Amino acid sequence: MRLSQLPLTTFKEVPAEAEIVSHQLMLRAGLVRRLASGLFTWLPLGLRVLRRVERIVREEMDRAGAFEVSMPVVQPAELWRETGRWDVYGDLLLRIRDRHDRSFCFAPTAEEVVTDLARRELRSYRQLPVTFYQVQTKFRDEIRPRFGIMRAREFVMKDAYSFHLDQASLAETYATMAMTYHRIFTRLGLRFRAVDADGGEIGGSRSQEFHVLADSGEDRIAWCEGDDFAANVELAPALPPTGTRAAPAASLARVATPGARSISEVASLLGVPASTCVKTLVVETDDGGLCALVVRGDHEVNPLKAARVPGIAQPLKLASAERVASELGLPVGFIGPGGLDIRVVADHAAVALVDFICGANESDMHLSGVNWGRDLPEPEAADLRDVVSGDPSPGGGGSLTVARGIEVGHIFQLGNKYSRSMNACVLDQEGREQPMVMGCYGIGITRIVAAAIEQNHDDAGIIWPEPMSPADVTLLVLNPKKVPEVTAAAERLYEELQQAGWSVLFDDRDARPGVKFADADLIGIPHRLVFGERGLRNGKLEYRHRATGEELELELGEVVAALGSRMLPAEV
Amino acid sequence: MRLSQLPLTTFKEVPAEAEIVSHQLMLRAGLVRRLASGLFTWLPLGLRVLRRVERIVREEMDRAGAFEVSMPVVQPAELWRETGRWDVYGDLLLRIRDRHDRSFCFAPTAEEVVTDLARRELRSYRQLPVTFYQVQTKFRDEIRPRFGIMRAREFVMKDAYSFHLDQASLAETYATMAMTYHRIFTRLGLRFRAVDADGGEIGGSRSQEFHVLADSGEDRIAWCEGDDFAANVELAPALPPTGTRAAPAASLARVATPGARSISEVASLLGVPASTCVKTLVVETDDGGLCALVVRGDHEVNPLKAARVPGIAQPLKLASAERVASELGLPVGFIGPGGLDIRVVADHAAVALVDFICGANESDMHLSGVNWGRDLPEPEAADLRDVVSGDPSPGGGGSLTVARGIEVGHIFQLGNKYSRSMNACVLDQEGREQPMVMGCYGIGITRIVAAAIEQNHDDAGIIWPEPMSPADVTLLVLNPKKVPEVTAAAERLYEELQQAGWSVLFDDRDARPGVKFADADLIGIPHRLVFGERGLRNGKLEYRHRATGEELELELGEVVAALGSRMLPAEV
Repeated sequence: MRLSQLPLTTFKEVPAEAEIVSHQLMLRAGLVRRLASGLFTWLPLGLRVLRRVERIVREEMDRAGAFEVSMPVVQPAELWRETGRWDVYGDLLLRIRDRHDRSFCFAPTAEEVVTDLARRELRSYRQLPVTFYQVQTKFRDEIRPRFGIMRAREFVMKDAYSFHLDQASLAETYATMAMTYHRIFTRLGLRFRAVDADGGEIGGSRSQEFHVLADSGEDRIAWCEGDDFAANVELAPALPPTGTRAAPAASLARVATPGARSISEVASLLGVPASTCVKTLVVETDDGGLCALVVRGDHEVNPLKAARVPGIAQPLKLASAERVASELGLPVGFIGPGGLDIRVVADHAAVALVDFICGANESDMHLSGVNWGRDLPEPEAADLRDVVSGDPSPGGGGSLTVARGIEVGHIFQLGNKYSRSMNACVLDQEGREQPMVMGCYGIGITRIVAAAIEQNHDDAGIIWPEPMSPADVTLLVLNPKKVPEVTAAAERLYEELQQAGWSVLFDDRDARPGVKFADADLIGIPHRLVFGERGLRNGKLEYRHRATGEELELELGEVVAALGSRMLPAEV
Repeated sequence: MRLSQLPLTTFKEVPAEAEIVSHQLMLRAGLVRRLASGLFTWLPLGLRVLRRVERIVREEMDRAGAFEVSMPVVQPAELWRETGRWDVYGDLLLRIRDRHDRSFCFAPTAEEVVTDLARRELRSYRQLPVTFYQVQTKFRDEIRPRFGIMRAREFVMKDAYSFHLDQASLAETYATMAMTYHRIFTRLGLRFRAVDADGGEIGGSRSQEFHVLADSGEDRIAWCEGDDFAANVELAPALPPTGTRAAPAASLARVATPGARSISEVASLLGVPASTCVKTLVVETDDGGLCALVVRGDHEVNPLKAARVPGIAQPLKLASAERVASELGLPVGFIGPGGLDIRVVADHAAVALVDFICGANESDMHLSGVNWGRDLPEPEAADLRDVVSGDPSPGGGGSLTVARGIEVGHIFQLGNKYSRSMNACVLDQEGREQPMVMGCYGIGITRIVAAAIEQNHDDAGIIWPEPMSPADVTLLVLNPKKVPEVTAAAERLYEELQQAGWSVLFDDRDARPGVKFADADLIGIPHRLVFGERGLRNGKLEYRHRATGEELELELGEVVAALGSRMLPAEV
C-alpha cells in the first residue's frame, strides 16, 4: 500500500473526545473515524487489522470443525418472544418496525436465530454434534457508548453455537473451543488469560472469559502461575488465613479522628497501614433489616460474595445514611463493629486481625487496639472481599496475581435453556425427542483491535503484534523528489519485498522525514526500513524494530533474507 | 468439506414458496434458508459461493486502486436530511429510533455517509482522485420481498464511491470502473452485458448497468454484436425505417370485429399478422388535454420515450376509459387514429405502414386497408416504442438483439449532487473551494449468486461457473461401509486433491449411491469424481463434467494431473 495514494490524515494532538489510549491512537493513526455516537467507519489501515484478526479466527474455527454460516442482522421479534428475551433484554436491544409494522431487532447476539435454524435443519442425533459460527456486524444500544471501538454500539463479533445430544458431548466441544480460543489469541500475538466467569445474562451453567491483559482493562482477573486457577476477581475465593490468631497486645483506646471518614484518612492521620484498620458497611438483609459487614481496611467488599451470605439481600444493597442514622443512631464514616445491635459478619482476613482500628460509632472518634473476643464478640466469618495480588491461590500452587483485563472472548455452556423454550429437539438413539444441549462461543473481533493497542503501545504510538499489523514492513523513502535514483531504488525494493510475500506500507509521500518517522511510529508497523540518499550511495538501509527499538544497518541486497529471519511468516 | 459432517438437508420437491428457479435450487441444495420475509441465512455451501464472489470483487477493486473501508450499517438521519433523501427515499428506507429517540436508518446505500467521510478527510485536490469501497450488509424494506435472494430485504452489496476535482477525472475513474466490472463478471464466469441505463433515483448524469443474461430476468436489454451499442430497452432508440413508403394497394373497408378489443384478437379474427395493425392509446398532455399515440400492433409503447415527446404529460399517464368515452365519445378497444379531434403522434414504424388495420372509433368495428395521407392525415412521427430483436442498431453495426437480464451492477456519474448539498469541498490548484465531483459503483454480491443460478442450471440442479462453485471438485465414495479399502483409498484421494490446491466436497456419507448422484447434480460442482469398489479393483475413477455431461475414466494415479488440465486454477 502506497501512502502517497491513501488519503491518510494522521494527527499529533490527542483528540478531546477520546478517553482511552486505544481510542486516541486509532483516531490519530487514521484507523477509524467516528460517524455518530458509538458508530465508527473503519479506514483502510484499520480494516486491514480487522481482516487479519477475522482471518485467524476463521482459520481456527474451521480447524475446530465449525461450519461458517451467515445469519440475517435483522431478526424477527417472534423468535425473541419465544425465549422471553424480547421483554427482558432491555434497551440494549435496538428494536425496529418495518413498513408493515412488524417488529424486528438488530442482532445483538443470535441464540434465537440459530436455535430456529437448528430446529428446522436437525432431526436426528446422527447429525450431532455440530457447531455453526458467523462473523457478523452486531448492535447493542449502549446507553453511553464510549472508549471508541472498545464499547461501540455497532461492532463485529464472531459468534458460534454448538448443538449436542447430551452434556458429555457439549463438554467435549466446549473443551475444543477453549483450546481453539487459546490458539486464536496466541496466534494473534496477545498476552491473555482465560478465567472462570459468571454466566451473566446469557444463562447456562459454565463459562470462561478470555481477557487481553492491559492496565486500562475494565475487568479484574486473578490467576496463579503455579496451578490452573484463573477467575474473574468477582468469582475468585479468598482463602481464610491459616494458623491461629495472635494474642492481643495493645489495650483498647479511644482516639480522636476529626473529619477522618475514610480508611485512608484515618490511617494517614494515625500513621498506620490501612491493613491494621477495618471498615464497616451497613447493608440490608433479605427480611428488610440491617447487617454490618466488616473487611480489612486495605480490602474491598465484593458485592457478589457478600450477597451470597445467607440472610443478606440479593443483590447487595447498602443501607442509606439516613436509615443508619435514624434506626441505629450511627454516624456514617465512624461506624465500627463494636456494640452494634445488628448482626455482624466479618471477612476472614478481618477476623484474623489483632489490635486493630475501627470506628467508635461516635462522630470524629475511632477505637484503637481493638480485639475480637476481648472488646467485642467474635463475629460471624465469611468470604466477603475481592482477592488481591499475593493472596494464596485456591489451587494451592502459590500466590495469586491480580491484573486488569479486557474481555475479548467468552465461552458458555448453555445447556437446554434455548432449545427447551424454542422446542429444538432431535430424536435420540431410542427414537425419543430430546431438546438439544447447546454451547455458545463469542469473540469481539473489533474489540480485539482496541485491546491489542491498549496492551501494545508507547508514547509514540501503536506497537502492533506482528500477526495483526496492517502491514508486515513499512518502507520509508526520504526526500524522494530530491534524487530520482533514490525513488527508483526504493520502488525496486518495494516490489522485491512484495514478491517475497511481505505486505508493505510504502511511505512514498512527498513529506518531510520527520513526518514520516513520526507517522511510522504512530501507525506501529513492526519492522521499519528507511532508505535515502546516503543509503543509495553506500548500498545500505536502516532497519528499526518498533517494539524493541533495535536498530541495524542492512545491506541492500540482503534485506529480504534479513527480514525473513526476523519476521513471522506472513501466512501462518 | 466432508458431507458426513455437514448437516446438509437437500430435497427433491420444489418448495411451494419459491417462484423462480434460483430460489428453488438454493433452497433445495441447502445454500440458504428463509428466516422471515426477505431475510435469509446463508448455510455453509452457499456462503462459500458468496465468499468466492466477494474475493474476486475485492481483488479487482484493489487492482483498480480503490481503498476498502467499512462504514456503519446504522446511519444517522441527520446526514440523510442534509441531502433531502430522508423525506424522499420512501418506505424502502428502514428507519430506526435508538434508546434516546434519535433517528437512524439501516443503510440501503451510503452516499451520505461516504460524503460525510470525504468532507472530513479530504482537504486538497492533491488527495484526489480517490475511490473508497466496502462490501456491506444492506437493507431495503421491499413492500413485497420475493424471488428469494434476488429481491431480499437484507442483502450484501459492494458499494464504491469516487471523489474528483473535476469531471475529466471522474470520467477516467468511471472508465476504469467499467473495465473493472467487465473483469469481475468475466472472472466470475458469467455471460453478461453492460448497457447504458437511466440514472434512476440515485441521480447524476451518466450510468451503465451490468446484466447477467437470463430468460427469467426482470429487465430487457438490447445490444448489437457488430458495434458498441448496448442499452436498457427503456433507453434504446428505435431508428425510423429507411426508404420511402409504398403506395397504397388496398381500398379502405369497414370490417366487423365483434368483441375483438386487443390486437391479438383482431389479428387472429382477420387472419393477419399483428404487424399489419396499429394500436392507438389516448394519453394526457401536459396542459390537461388528450393526445393519441399510435404504434404498430406488434410493438409496445415505451413510457419514457412517449413522455419525452413535447407536450405529453410526464410521467406518461393513460387517459381513463371514462374520460375517453365522455370527452371524445370513443369506445376503448376500437379506437383508431382516423377522424380524431385530438393531436395524433405515431411511431416511425407505424407511420411507415401501408394498407393497415386500425380501430374504427365505433364499437365492434375496425377499418382495413387504411393509408396515411389518403384516408387520414399524415401523423406527427416520433420514437414511441421499445426496440425489438432485429431492429437496426443505432450504432450502425447491424441488428439489435433484445434479451432479458438481471441487473447485478450499476455504475453512475453522480456529479456534485451530494457534495453540493453536503458541502463536501476541497481546495483546487488556485486555493479555491470546489465541491468534489463524485461517482458511485455498486455490485449486488448476494444477487450475483442467484443470477448465476438463473443463467446456469438444468432440470437436475445448479451448474456452477467454476470460479463461483462452492468447491472445485466433488468426490463421491460409493458404499463406503461395505469395503473398508474403498474408504481408505477415497480418503487418500481426498487428501491428495486438497494437497494439490483443489477445494473438494467429499461425499463420504453413509447414503445410497442414487442419493449421492442426485445431490451432486443438485449442488452442481463442476467436476465430479466417483470412486467405488469397482474403481478400487481396477485402479480407476469415473469423471463427469457437470455442465457438458462429458464422462471419462481416469487412472487413479493420474487424477490430480488430469483434473489440473481440465480446471481453472483455484487461485486466479
